[in-house]
Formats: sequence, structure tokens, C-alpha cells
Amino acid sequence: MPTIVVDVMPKAELLDPQGKAVAGALSRLGENRFSDVRIGKRFELTVEGEVDEATLARARELADEMLSNAVIEDVVNVEVIER
Amino acid sequence: MPTIVVDVMPKAELLDPQGKAVAGALSRLGENRFSDVRIGKRFELTVEGEVDEATLARARELADEMLSNAVIEDVVNVEVIER
Repeated sequence: MPTIVVDVMPKAELLDPQGKAVAGALSRLGENRFSDVRIGKRFELTVEGEVDEATLARARELADEMLSNAVIEDVVNVEVIER
Repeated sequence: MPTIVVDVMPKAELLDPQGKAVAGALSRLGENRFSDVRIGKRFELTVEGEVDEATLARARELADEMLSNAVIEDVVNVEVIER
């Protein structure tokens, strides 16, 4: 079944305390290869039937209007994967 | 700066009430192209310098051990993106 993946991340200018907590834990583990961690959301929308242009366009619309909050989040990726 | 993306999703056999809530909202909006919605997490790890094999291997390890809970979640994707 085709699936549309929508990735939403907190805006770059926001602090993202969850990500900071993970970055702090990594640093306490002595892990210095990763300088920053940010945590966002991944939505998987299962599509009934084929993914045509209209479905993908609708998914992009829903990503902007319903799956993300434009004040604090950016939609960074919308793509189709096969399952 | 290269970034390693780690995608974590709730296991297929789990209910995922957040996803169900979004799927229900879509259906109430009359949107019938999407039969299911699942919501997971997207981690972005900023890497200092180049991403070599060791760094990617370490990221996969951290994804399994620290960024996900194997009892309820699957790591579905670990990839490098350029920012």
C-alpha cells in the first residue's frame, strides 16, 4: 500500500527542549560527534489506491493546515514511499 | 552541515491513539483518500565534520539504544542529508 510521509520539525529559531535533553545525554555519554539534536514528527498517511498528483497535493495542503502548526513548526518533507 | 536523520515509528501492532485521532479528523472532513495515519518521531542529529562509516554506525546504535524504545517502537530509517 503506498504511504505518504510528512515530516514536521520545530522551527530553527525555537529551543526544542526535548532535542536539547537528548543532545545533553549524548554529551554526558562522551559522544562528541553530534553537535545538536532536534526532534520533530513523522506522519505516515496510508493511501487507498494509487497516489496521483491530486492526492499528493491534498497531502501537502493537509500537512500545512492540519498536521503542522506554522507558528512553531516547518513541514520539511512530503514524499511517497511503497510499503 | 551534514545531518543524520533517524525515523522512529510506533510498532504496527500498537494502536497509536494520536494517529487514530488525526485519521478520525480527516474522515470527519470528508477526506477518504487516506485510510490510516500513524505518528512517529523524526530525530535530526547534526554531525560535526564529515559523516564516515563509523559515525553512521554509531548513529544506528544510538537509534536502537537511546532514541527508540524497542518494546513499542521501530527504527524505520537512518539516513544522511545535507543542510
